[in-house]
Amino acid sequence: MSPRKILIDTDPGQDDAFAILLALGSPEELEIVGVTAVAGNVPLSRTARNAQMILELAGRGDITVYPGCQRPMVRPLFTAEYVHGDSGLDGGDLPEPVQPLGQTHGVDFIIETIMAHEPGEITICPLGPMTNIAMAMVKEPAIVARIREIVFMGGGFFEGGNTTPAAEFNIYVDPHAAHVVFTSGVPLTMVPIDCTYKAVMTPGWLKDLRNVGKKTAVEAAGMAEFYQRWGNTKFGTDEYPLHDPCVIGYLLRPELFKGRSCYVTIEIASPTTIGMTVVDWWNVTKQEPNCMVLRDLDNPPFYQLMLERISRLP
Amino acid sequence: MSPRKILIDTDPGQDDAFAILLALGSPEELEIVGVTAVAGNVPLSRTARNAQMILELAGRGDITVYPGCQRPMVRPLFTAEYVHGDSGLDGGDLPEPVQPLGQTHGVDFIIETIMAHEPGEITICPLGPMTNIAMAMVKEPAIVARIREIVFMGGGFFEGGNTTPAAEFNIYVDPHAAHVVFTSGVPLTMVPIDCTYKAVMTPGWLKDLRNVGKKTAVEAAGMAEFYQRWGNTKFGTDEYPLHDPCVIGYLLRPELFKGRSCYVTIEIASPTTIGMTVVDWWNVTKQEPNCMVLRDLDNPPFYQLMLERISRLP
Amino acid sequence: MSPRKILIDTDPGQDDAFAILLALGSPEELEIVGVTAVAGNVPLSRTARNAQMILELAGRGDITVYPGCQRPMVRPLFTAEYVHGDSGLDGGDLPEPVQPLGQTHGVDFIIETIMAHEPGEITICPLGPMTNIAMAMVKEPAIVARIREIVFMGGGFFEGGNTTPAAEFNIYVDPHAAHVVFTSGVPLTMVPIDCTYKAVMTPGWLKDLRNVGKKTAVEAAGMAEFYQRWGNTKFGTDEYPLHDPCVIGYLLRPELFKGRSCYVTIEIASPTTIGMTVVDWWNVTKQEPNCMVLRDLDNPPFYQLMLERISRLP
Amino acid sequence: MSPRKILIDTDPGQDDAFAILLALGSPEELEIVGVTAVAGNVPLSRTARNAQMILELAGRGDITVYPGCQRPMVRPLFTAEYVHGDSGLDGGDLPEPVQPLGQTHGVDFIIETIMAHEPGEITICPLGPMTNIAMAMVKEPAIVARIREIVFMGGGFFEGGNTTPAAEFNIYVDPHAAHVVFTSGVPLTMVPIDCTYKAVMTPGWLKDLRNVGKKTAVEAAGMAEFYQRWGNTKFGTDEYPLHDPCVIGYLLRPELFKGRSCYVTIEIASPTTIGMTVVDWWNVTKQEPNCMVLRDLDNPPFYQLMLERISRLP
Repeated sequence: MSPRKILIDTDPGQDDAFAILLALGSPEELEIVGVTAVAGNVPLSRTARNAQMILELAGRGDITVYPGCQRPMVRPLFTAEYVHGDSGLDGGDLPEPVQPLGQTHGVDFIIETIMAHEPGEITICPLGPMTNIAMAMVKEPAIVARIREIVFMGGGFFEGGNTTPAAEFNIYVDPHAAHVVFTSGVPLTMVPIDCTYKAVMTPGWLKDLRNVGKKTAVEAAGMAEFYQRWGNTKFGTDEYPLHDPCVIGYLLRPELFKGRSCYVTIEIASPTTIGMTVVDWWNVTKQEPNCMVLRDLDNPPFYQLMLERISRLP
Repeated sequence: MSPRKILIDTDPGQDDAFAILLALGSPEELEIVGVTAVAGNVPLSRTARNAQMILELAGRGDITVYPGCQRPMVRPLFTAEYVHGDSGLDGGDLPEPVQPLGQTHGVDFIIETIMAHEPGEITICPLGPMTNIAMAMVKEPAIVARIREIVFMGGGFFEGGNTTPAAEFNIYVDPHAAHVVFTSGVPLTMVPIDCTYKAVMTPGWLKDLRNVGKKTAVEAAGMAEFYQRWGNTKFGTDEYPLHDPCVIGYLLRPELFKGRSCYVTIEIASPTTIGMTVVDWWNVTKQEPNCMVLRDLDNPPFYQLMLERISRLP
Repeated sequence: MSPRKILIDTDPGQDDAFAILLALGSPEELEIVGVTAVAGNVPLSRTARNAQMILELAGRGDITVYPGCQRPMVRPLFTAEYVHGDSGLDGGDLPEPVQPLGQTHGVDFIIETIMAHEPGEITICPLGPMTNIAMAMVKEPAIVARIREIVFMGGGFFEGGNTTPAAEFNIYVDPHAAHVVFTSGVPLTMVPIDCTYKAVMTPGWLKDLRNVGKKTAVEAAGMAEFYQRWGNTKFGTDEYPLHDPCVIGYLLRPELFKGRSCYVTIEIASPTTIGMTVVDWWNVTKQEPNCMVLRDLDNPPFYQLMLERISRLP
Repeated sequence: MSPRKILIDTDPGQDDAFAILLALGSPEELEIVGVTAVAGNVPLSRTARNAQMILELAGRGDITVYPGCQRPMVRPLFTAEYVHGDSGLDGGDLPEPVQPLGQTHGVDFIIETIMAHEPGEITICPLGPMTNIAMAMVKEPAIVARIREIVFMGGGFFEGGNTTPAAEFNIYVDPHAAHVVFTSGVPLTMVPIDCTYKAVMTPGWLKDLRNVGKKTAVEAAGMAEFYQRWGNTKFGTDEYPLHDPCVIGYLLRPELFKGRSCYVTIEIASPTTIGMTVVDWWNVTKQEPNCMVLRDLDNPPFYQLMLERISRLP
């Protein structure tokens, strides 16, 4: 079977880096048809460059990064340097990009890629705010019926939010984009913090990663250690989750994840709860489900997989 | 030490019944200065009568029940016969009330009781929608500074809602009343479904209760068995929680409960999330806490306590 | 024919004073069954006392004033001393009240009055925020079907708001109370600023009023002159409208007013437009009308009437 | 002086046709650098074709029409065939387009045009929902500082709405796009229904237009007559306004219009008032104005101008 074609939309972010590295280390299963960048964890100029540096680190500077939107659809940009550091990738020593950025706008690259492939061929993996995806859907509605699936990191329900009491960062930054995606009819799989909070890195795993000794693994470990400091501060523990690689982990090993098909709406009206993913887990609304919502993860084999795959990279 | 004076505001409901019985069985610690009824689980005409019948069952028909509001402050009434049965107390065979209902309106009884006692003497225990309490605060703001504490069952956060995806029943029915209470400045303790979902009755406990053999215990067991059937349907288990007695349990044995002081707001703007208790558990908003939010409960000693106290009743 | 029985709910305010005086000067047509006071233009302690002083000025200190709510149902109180002066009645020299305030709460006086009369006998005339009326409806829903009509000053549509861009003062102060009233099913007549802005006092009329020479007319003229200064500042003209007497004017001479039966909703969800009376003048929503909305007024005969009736007072 | 460069974004619509014809007839003053089409009055496939047919009718088929967005940014599309007829241009017999549609997406044409000109050179004239403009701003924020001015038809304040009680059609269809434009900082001039309702066509003027006898004038008269029938139904008069040409009229003869610089926000939160342009005409919010809001129009010279300019066309 040929590898599944994925388009990664990202705002690195140390955990985005792990998602990209996990995908790059799994070429038999996943083919990255392109990477688009979006403003989110840090501004676009940094996320685009960060995506390039991650690819370069992993020896895949040949994959072009296409910068997309600098701002959310309706609201002003809100970034999270308090989590990721000023660069977004603090903690790693990454190589300068060699290849130039793509000249096509990220939104157009999404449209062109989907239109250039057969219907049902492309899976989109948003790791940040869904601005680029929603903008592409509004600009060219013909893509909607051609997308195989959107598997994204974002939202929360029984865990609430991580940015406001009700909202998780990726959805909070661009709730209107999320609303467009959730009302599109495209098959959706959501990896919310309810699931990713179970994807904790342990100190032992971090040591194993560093001990791989190769450049990519060592710098990945450096980024993970910086990232973990935020978790230490917030939760008072030395185990902290990597959110974004769960998206790729689910594509590689869906059997490690558990979830439920639910009806999900995005709160876009209230100042208090804007950006909340309102998940009808118990189906009290009797609405048709529009999203597979993941809630559980078998952590050890997932981290084992991540270690193996990153170890393959130079 | 003299017993703590409590005013119970209730919409029975089988689990309200257990709260009232637990209080009645604990006269050394709690003195019920009055019972007010409110529309909620079932309409007011039933909740008022149900409260009377519970008191009568426990041999305390001398405590007068004061009917309060028939409808929420702003929205139309929404009831839950699908949970509690048509009577609200299906499953028990309860005696007819002997005493008449109080002639004073429940809202006025609350005002008069608080004004007739010293500041800081009265604790209010709302077991249903907070309509009567909020109406009393709006009608006579002087009561606000005289209330010792409000300890109530309602809301949810990491558990979401039980009536809509975001809202728990008591708050959903009258979110505006809850908003009035949460912005009043009165010391608040909230017993949300996050806590009460841990207060599950086991089949063994139910058997023990029935085996007490006295009228009150036997009829309580009957009500609990009816009530449990809803839980069986929803959660597919034979363990189902009794929400309201946790309020009284907390007053009797606070050491069995764990929680955190949080800033809580009530969603009253959005049609999707109206009635949600937005709990800032991680204090991301940096607001001053306005509520002790209970999240954990030591179940076995709590149910042991409930069994002992109900066993004392005739 | 016996005079129409009205209950005046008021927050004086100079223009409330004119409404009360106009009613007092029209005993053949209107019988004031009671006056309730509400917080609005100024706090309740002042509005209650102001209402007493107006009655005293007009020689009707025998009519008891019943103080109602000190605060709106859901939101904090917002007052308008910037319009009315600190006392609410700046500009007049009014006698001290002789009679005590009523001991019954305004909300209860409303309930008792309506229940004590035949269904369809009592017309309520709210001249301020509708807190007392809505509280009475929530506390005792049985009154709803017994109210003949509610004729009130409040709202705006083609004129927008006067307190925020979208909201008129009386509705803005307690939008939730207005919502309760508008969804009650009671026959409603709304006198919005669209109508009252046409009820301008002219300098000539003010002179005529003063020239009546009797105490009531002279002090009324004084209050009107103070009140007008706000209008001068806002609109740059020496013609300024008296809002509240239009309510009484409509009861006395409906033929001087023009309006349309419309479907009206109250905005209670949005921070930007909260308190707006959303009037479907063109019936684009195809909803059943729930309110007669007055828009036009024949000014000269209305002011002529007001002059005649106030002239009758001592 | 060289003519002012304008980019027309349109959803024809009979009144859009008059705006375009007025601009085409005024080459000394206005240079149309391009026309983009948007979904609004009718779906995009029709508005794009309609724009072509209008240009063809006026002998300017050489101006390329670039189709933009088929749907609003966040909400589903709402169209108005009940006003404009199924084609959007019912009433006229217009020539088939000869030139093909532009291959560049309307959103990109806007971006490219603004970036290809000097900052401050291009004025945008939106005659429909502002989807294309806002999408361009989100996709390429660099255009924002380069736009000279946006002069658009849309909104209402003292006139309320024409589609819901609170919202005018163009803003109602895409309130989020309007919000993006109003918060962009670009100099804005709004021509709301408050102004355009004064731009009524009289039967005499329609006769004069038809009597011009040239193809463009005759078909324009045909479209106007069809369009007027809606007005006759709604307002019960044979005078009905042409909204969109006021935008071009203002660019040609600003002295015929009166308005005020105001702070304007767009309601995007409430289901009841969504799409409302909340205009702070009296500056009660003390916010800095962000929009010149036109309210008055000198009708006869405006229609005289329109007649003269359309008469110049073939």
